[in-house]
Amino acid sequence: MYKNSRLIAEYEQSLNDMKGLIAFSGLALAALAANAEESTRPNIVLFLVDDMGWQDTSVPFYNDQQTPLNRRFHTPNMERMAELGVRFTEAYACAISSPTRCSLMSGMNAARHRVTNWTLELNQSTDRKSQTLLLPDWNYNGIQPDTATPIRNATPITPLPQILKDNGYFTIHCGKAHFGARTTPGANPSSMGFDVNIGGGPNGAPGSYLGVKNFGEGTRFAVEGMEKYHGQDIFLTEALTREAIVAMDKATALGKPFYLYMSHYAVHSPIDDDARFSDSYRGRYDEQLKDTLNEREARYAALVEGMDKSLGDLLDYLEAHPETGRNTILLFMSDNGGQAVPGSRQGRGNRDQNYPARAGKGSAFMGGVHEPMMVYWPGVTQGGTQNKQRVMIEDFFPTILDMAGVRDYQTSQTIDGISFADVVRSPGLQRERPIVWHFPNLWGETQDIEEGYGAYSSILKGDYHLIYAWETQRIRLYNIREDIGEYTDLSTRMPEKAKELSRLLTKYLKERNAQRPAYRSNGKLIPYPDGSEK
Amino acid sequence: MYKNSRLIAEYEQSLNDMKGLIAFSGLALAALAANAEESTRPNIVLFLVDDMGWQDTSVPFYNDQQTPLNRRFHTPNMERMAELGVRFTEAYACAISSPTRCSLMSGMNAARHRVTNWTLELNQSTDRKSQTLLLPDWNYNGIQPDTATPIRNATPITPLPQILKDNGYFTIHCGKAHFGARTTPGANPSSMGFDVNIGGGPNGAPGSYLGVKNFGEGTRFAVEGMEKYHGQDIFLTEALTREAIVAMDKATALGKPFYLYMSHYAVHSPIDDDARFSDSYRGRYDEQLKDTLNEREARYAALVEGMDKSLGDLLDYLEAHPETGRNTILLFMSDNGGQAVPGSRQGRGNRDQNYPARAGKGSAFMGGVHEPMMVYWPGVTQGGTQNKQRVMIEDFFPTILDMAGVRDYQTSQTIDGISFADVVRSPGLQRERPIVWHFPNLWGETQDIEEGYGAYSSILKGDYHLIYAWETQRIRLYNIREDIGEYTDLSTRMPEKAKELSRLLTKYLKERNAQRPAYRSNGKLIPYPDGSEK
Repeated sequence: MYKNSRLIAEYEQSLNDMKGLIAFSGLALAALAANAEESTRPNIVLFLVDDMGWQDTSVPFYNDQQTPLNRRFHTPNMERMAELGVRFTEAYACAISSPTRCSLMSGMNAARHRVTNWTLELNQSTDRKSQTLLLPDWNYNGIQPDTATPIRNATPITPLPQILKDNGYFTIHCGKAHFGARTTPGANPSSMGFDVNIGGGPNGAPGSYLGVKNFGEGTRFAVEGMEKYHGQDIFLTEALTREAIVAMDKATALGKPFYLYMSHYAVHSPIDDDARFSDSYRGRYDEQLKDTLNEREARYAALVEGMDKSLGDLLDYLEAHPETGRNTILLFMSDNGGQAVPGSRQGRGNRDQNYPARAGKGSAFMGGVHEPMMVYWPGVTQGGTQNKQRVMIEDFFPTILDMAGVRDYQTSQTIDGISFADVVRSPGLQRERPIVWHFPNLWGETQDIEEGYGAYSSILKGDYHLIYAWETQRIRLYNIREDIGEYTDLSTRMPEKAKELSRLLTKYLKERNAQRPAYRSNGKLIPYPDGSEK
Repeated sequence: MYKNSRLIAEYEQSLNDMKGLIAFSGLALAALAANAEESTRPNIVLFLVDDMGWQDTSVPFYNDQQTPLNRRFHTPNMERMAELGVRFTEAYACAISSPTRCSLMSGMNAARHRVTNWTLELNQSTDRKSQTLLLPDWNYNGIQPDTATPIRNATPITPLPQILKDNGYFTIHCGKAHFGARTTPGANPSSMGFDVNIGGGPNGAPGSYLGVKNFGEGTRFAVEGMEKYHGQDIFLTEALTREAIVAMDKATALGKPFYLYMSHYAVHSPIDDDARFSDSYRGRYDEQLKDTLNEREARYAALVEGMDKSLGDLLDYLEAHPETGRNTILLFMSDNGGQAVPGSRQGRGNRDQNYPARAGKGSAFMGGVHEPMMVYWPGVTQGGTQNKQRVMIEDFFPTILDMAGVRDYQTSQTIDGISFADVVRSPGLQRERPIVWHFPNLWGETQDIEEGYGAYSSILKGDYHLIYAWETQRIRLYNIREDIGEYTDLSTRMPEKAKELSRLLTKYLKERNAQRPAYRSNGKLIPYPDGSEK
């Protein structure tokens, strides 16, 4: 456990020393101040988990209530981070991986960046075909650096790590990238502003987590750049963590602050057996299932615990290197809702995976987008607290730059995200933050409109969540404070609220020139949520 | 023949009478003046021929020289119009039908309206597939009125006839429309601001010109709305002309000025036999071929003469109705270069059809875009003159409104066209008018890059014509004053001129956010003509 108060005192003393030093000369002031700012830039670790639901942890995110799922999972290091820092219980991302990751790298909402479904192969849309809908020509080639030759169906951006790198950071990509289609510049983290790329490519999942299977070498989802672990009895999560630590050591050796994007492939399928942890789950009685966990459920819990062990390793590293640790901000986040694990038993389709939220990855419902999020900023956050500020994934872009003290930066894209760094510093500062999702696509795995899949847009403002299904033009409205499971559609009972939110949602989409599906039968673009046609 | 001087004198006298009348009352002045402007608005006839090359006539358009092709064709009514009005010998259109017609209806350059290839079926591109290029997602659904529900891949516009209609005109569509894909609002001239639609639909050609074949009923190119002539021994050109005259009578009965868009299907394929004229061409010796005309060549010349007879019928009508005639402006134009008629003999591919210009319909060379154009404006144009002002097809939009005295109009689109009405009024006013073509597509009929086909953009400024082939990124430069056949590529001899024009062309395309092809191999958008990548 960190000794916070001691560290803060040391940190403030060193700042005072520096100020005293600067005071001696008016002339040298400006140069030294700039220098001082650079040398005191904090390290930043963004620990992003893949496909992790907000309930796939022993840390409660449904306010302070322990849910049955919180009791199934064992994540002691997330508990440790929650004690050190602050839980954000109203954090959201897109419902699918690439849109989230492109928002994070660009600060743009998906309605603007147009990478609205997942990416993989050059010039190939992953949309499911539809008899009814004609889907937009979205940016299935992903994002790419604005310095590269433009690619068709790709969004040029000034990437977050590039700005950090330009401001003195040593930037480390570790794990899943999934920014752009195979062979595009965006597919390679090294061209996106990262000094180091560990294991990142166009693939959104690992062919295998197993070193003995060479992490899926030869498959479409091969993890590249981890050859030194091939043939070894090591789990990918562990191998990535070890490499991340090597990279942090390198930053220290270079005397540079670092940005570590610790982007785990875990806990995405395949649900390989992490033998370090799976035995303790096998055959265990589960309160939610009212039965013992089956093999896949046990393995999934182990995959989660393996991810948690990585978080613990990083916390250990920062404790073991207090000079680094006291100047390192740690952010924990997931990229979309928990995925219905094939073979897991669920009461109703994909629903129970994120209970008490409805549905999961890919859905407009809260189960698709509500994320476990935490921030630990030594000397700034107060341990063991909770923050209800709403946060959307694109907010991380300006927040991280704000935390890094990088303020005068230029981007070729328009930023939709809003920094929450001030709310981390002063939790009393809470602001209204309406959130919009836009998915004019069809996911490959299910298109069940009733459960929030299919092409949709939605908006969350105050207690109300409005969902618009493009194909049926149906509006649904839920009070997520009273009805987190979104069972009771209030749209007919509260027509004024439905009208207000559908207008706001429409305005947001129009301002970003968001793409819309059309009907195949007549080519007509489907009206916006408020019924307007143009 | 018109007695121009007598008509002008009558016209001016009636204007003076009107002014005297208005002078009696200050109060009534404004109302009467507005009324007077409306009642004196000229009728306007735009006589647009389809697929007619600049040499498919006995009227010379290659300056004043009679060419061998001028001597093959017999167009006495075009000669008559040339004697009454002015020949524009530097008039241009797009190289393919739909782009031209969409520019005419919108005033936009094709680089902006994005209907860059021909349209027909809903949501179906007519581009030829390529192993090398990935073509843009262009607007293959055409243009549509901005008042209708938006269609995917269609450009919403305020159409020219709608503005005329809103300003008191009776607007008549007669013949080929080809504005939008089947079932879209743009496919129907009645939804594009025309009071009357005679025979216009999504089809860019007639299934047949023959009444006995019901004008191709039952085929994809069926001419709709001409049922009263079905089964009759009548040629489509003739039937359309008769209906146009009925519609002009109707306008007169209504006391409204009219806009007649006399848009012949002729002289597009199929090369059906217009038996009224074909016998006089059969077996005739031809100076260019140095042989007698074969059956198809004879039929094509007859198709041209049938079109010319229609022009004569309209001139006769205007002479027979002098009150109408003296207030009617007549514009003659074609929509693209002459098509290589299948079965015609040509020295080199599609070249001799538009000799001395190189290549034909679909090509970037002058044979693809140089048009026969004339204007007859009673009391304004001086008969038998020639005007070398450069004109591009989108210029007709502001020109026609200018001629109609409609000045305060709003459009949802940005107009690229420049009115030449002032140049018609005062031929001494000549202005530089650089012209840009943009075709990021592949035409179905040939993709011979050497002959100017394939995806290209080009610019004509002063004596120089620069052509950029997207696939090869090759620049070619010609001096069309000295080398109308564009045989001598000057790009290496005049690198500064090539650079200047490629920069101008690039600037024009970027300003209009023109679409670009990409390479299929790597998805990269092909650099602009000046080599810039973004």
